[in-house]
Amino acid sequence: MTGLRKVLVANRGEIALRVVRACRELGIRAVAVYSDADAQAAHVRLADDAVHLGKSAASKSYLDEEKVVEAARSAGVDAVHPGYGFLSERPSFAAAVEEAGLTFVGPSSSTISTMGDKAAARAVARRAGVPVVPGSDEVASVDDAVTAAEEIGYPVLVKASAGGGGRGIRPAASADELRTVVAEAQREAASAFGSDAVYLERALQGPKHVEVQVLGDTHGNVVHCFERECSLQRRRQKILEEAPAPGLDPSVRSALCDAAVRLASEVGYVGAGTVEFLVEGSEFFFIEMNTRIQVEHPITEWVTGLDLVAEQLRIAGGSPLSVGQDEIVSRGASIEFRVNAEDPDQDFLPSPGDVTGLELPGGPGVRVDTALMAGDAVPPFYDSLVAKLSVWAPTREQALARGRRALAEYRVEGLPTTIGLHRRLLDEPAVVDGTYDITTLETWLGSGSDP
Amino acid sequence: MTGLRKVLVANRGEIALRVVRACRELGIRAVAVYSDADAQAAHVRLADDAVHLGKSAASKSYLDEEKVVEAARSAGVDAVHPGYGFLSERPSFAAAVEEAGLTFVGPSSSTISTMGDKAAARAVARRAGVPVVPGSDEVASVDDAVTAAEEIGYPVLVKASAGGGGRGIRPAASADELRTVVAEAQREAASAFGSDAVYLERALQGPKHVEVQVLGDTHGNVVHCFERECSLQRRRQKILEEAPAPGLDPSVRSALCDAAVRLASEVGYVGAGTVEFLVEGSEFFFIEMNTRIQVEHPITEWVTGLDLVAEQLRIAGGSPLSVGQDEIVSRGASIEFRVNAEDPDQDFLPSPGDVTGLELPGGPGVRVDTALMAGDAVPPFYDSLVAKLSVWAPTREQALARGRRALAEYRVEGLPTTIGLHRRLLDEPAVVDGTYDITTLETWLGSGSDP
Repeated sequence: MTGLRKVLVANRGEIALRVVRACRELGIRAVAVYSDADAQAAHVRLADDAVHLGKSAASKSYLDEEKVVEAARSAGVDAVHPGYGFLSERPSFAAAVEEAGLTFVGPSSSTISTMGDKAAARAVARRAGVPVVPGSDEVASVDDAVTAAEEIGYPVLVKASAGGGGRGIRPAASADELRTVVAEAQREAASAFGSDAVYLERALQGPKHVEVQVLGDTHGNVVHCFERECSLQRRRQKILEEAPAPGLDPSVRSALCDAAVRLASEVGYVGAGTVEFLVEGSEFFFIEMNTRIQVEHPITEWVTGLDLVAEQLRIAGGSPLSVGQDEIVSRGASIEFRVNAEDPDQDFLPSPGDVTGLELPGGPGVRVDTALMAGDAVPPFYDSLVAKLSVWAPTREQALARGRRALAEYRVEGLPTTIGLHRRLLDEPAVVDGTYDITTLETWLGSGSDP
Repeated sequence: MTGLRKVLVANRGEIALRVVRACRELGIRAVAVYSDADAQAAHVRLADDAVHLGKSAASKSYLDEEKVVEAARSAGVDAVHPGYGFLSERPSFAAAVEEAGLTFVGPSSSTISTMGDKAAARAVARRAGVPVVPGSDEVASVDDAVTAAEEIGYPVLVKASAGGGGRGIRPAASADELRTVVAEAQREAASAFGSDAVYLERALQGPKHVEVQVLGDTHGNVVHCFERECSLQRRRQKILEEAPAPGLDPSVRSALCDAAVRLASEVGYVGAGTVEFLVEGSEFFFIEMNTRIQVEHPITEWVTGLDLVAEQLRIAGGSPLSVGQDEIVSRGASIEFRVNAEDPDQDFLPSPGDVTGLELPGGPGVRVDTALMAGDAVPPFYDSLVAKLSVWAPTREQALARGRRALAEYRVEGLPTTIGLHRRLLDEPAVVDGTYDITTLETWLGSGSDP
């Protein structure tokens, strides 16, 4: 079924366990890696073998490219699965794995590099005929900016070319405002990023974040697995995702999915990837491609019945995709709730600690992905995601009801989590009716209403 | 969505929790009942309210019809869901619920009564044109028996009319043997059951037990939800079930499902029910109908996406079925593993006790139905089923792999269970290739090979 015999799982937590599970089901031996803090972790206990990387700090363990490649070599694996986060989107790591003569479970280092570069990725999208957010090249002067803005249409955003993660962005609603803002933005960019280069983009008014799952194999096949709605975000961190995207016009859905396939085909994409868009009414704009498995992949697995991690491993082993586009059908509705060890009442302060009690929800249409068992501790060194609860039901309304039921059953004792926040989210009218956009969660959390 | 407001869940353990979950998702208040032993049980903790029935012995609590009806009255419910086992197939209980002016979640007491009577149920099958195992009426003499056997064809079984549960059954392969056996059987029946009446049935050679899930509503609609293969039994107790039935010829499958719908329609069936058949080659024979939800219903939920308990509640509330026959599609393959608190190494001796540690399997395609949490105890008073693990995957081969993976993750500490038995079952060639029949498990367990 697959050409792989033994795989190094270069991650920790729930995604490492997810990869271990897929390996076991495919008859592939899974080798875990771990830091001091994770010596007793579930992803280690459930793997066939494990290699110690180093101290607890991620930089000394999961983020240390050399140590991870050395672990792969010493364990005698054929391939390395990077999970998400950590080294998963570092071209240098994929290249190091390739240079060690091993298979990187994901696209080539050059594809990762291209799609990780904003300008290069936008160029790919344009070549593939996929719309990007209307914007300018770098503007040389305030007058240039005003000329460009007239073409783009107000309001616009002024963005620092060297910025990222939401930093260095300023809105302008008119030419007068733009003149002031561009000058300010140039000064700020020079001091913050060492370059005063700025460019303009159209400011969207409360768009939705909708992304399309794609799969490509080494035989030239590229398919999409429909979309996910991921607009409920706080500081660009998704907290709840669902499939299909509620309220999305069928013709827009179809155009989005086609665009994602065109874009992935344009770069000869191999592996699982996600093409992210902003959607406003019937318009959509490519924003970026994630060249790895996504946290929220379970909701796509629920509606399509596919096992995306198994597909990744089969693709890496040289097999063609297990399904053609016509066989991929979306059925029912699925919602994922990210359970983070964070305290929503204290501005989402991370809340590591010991789990003194744990009861997981179960029954029909409920899936839990967690590496956290009763008696385990959440170490303070890593991402605060500790579990993902996902539900499925024939309709969105039933999936919401199932989500409420499952969240009511879920008990984590010993530390605060986002479970209570999700229970409250499912009472919010914009969540219930599916009209929320990327501004909704932050507005709600900042509004002073009981968060 | 449903006319019910509040439901008494007249059961315990995983099925009580299953019904509580369905109620919550439908916005119906769920009232649990409990014995002394179950005061802290999960089905009580997760219900909206709970009524104490009495002492731990089932006869003083869950089997006491009067106490349960009184609990329903005092709690002010509209309806009573009986689960499976306990009072679920007692016509007197359904009648008592009806007489109290409440809705029994299931068919009428008269339907339960008819289908619970072997001869009456066979008569219904014959009227519906559904084949039954070829057999005779009661035979008045040894000569009558020989005449009847010539028509039925050898080998035959001689069965006591008043017998049941496999008792009072003797095989005969020829007329000579039959003459001896009938006389013996009459003497034994007279002493064991107080009646010497016996009848003959054709002895099937290793048939498969295949059952069809049906749903009927109060608007006259009856549909089937495909079949389940349940041949892996020990002392008539199913231990592993799967859907669809492996190796079943599509034309036989279709004929089985049609027969089940005809039979249910013949009695104007209302609710969820299961029509059980023995299948031998392309022949199939009705054996009985269970007029309640079945332990193994999750595998049908996996392949069809239906919520059978929610359908039961909707039907009881007077709603039509949520789907028509054409909308019920079977997708992929599902397997259920019954986790019993029994010791397979000690002839399946029940093993009540404290659960000192618990780790549940999770991830894609895995469902656990259990009311047993870490720190809980398995009381010695009731059925030994403590959990059901069910898995789904696009193909049977993948479902077997997923089952192996999930069983490897499942840990119950403090008492023996059947988890280890299931792990070994999944290595048995007849299980892997799906060729097992109703004799396979007992042969294997009795064969001296490592059980």
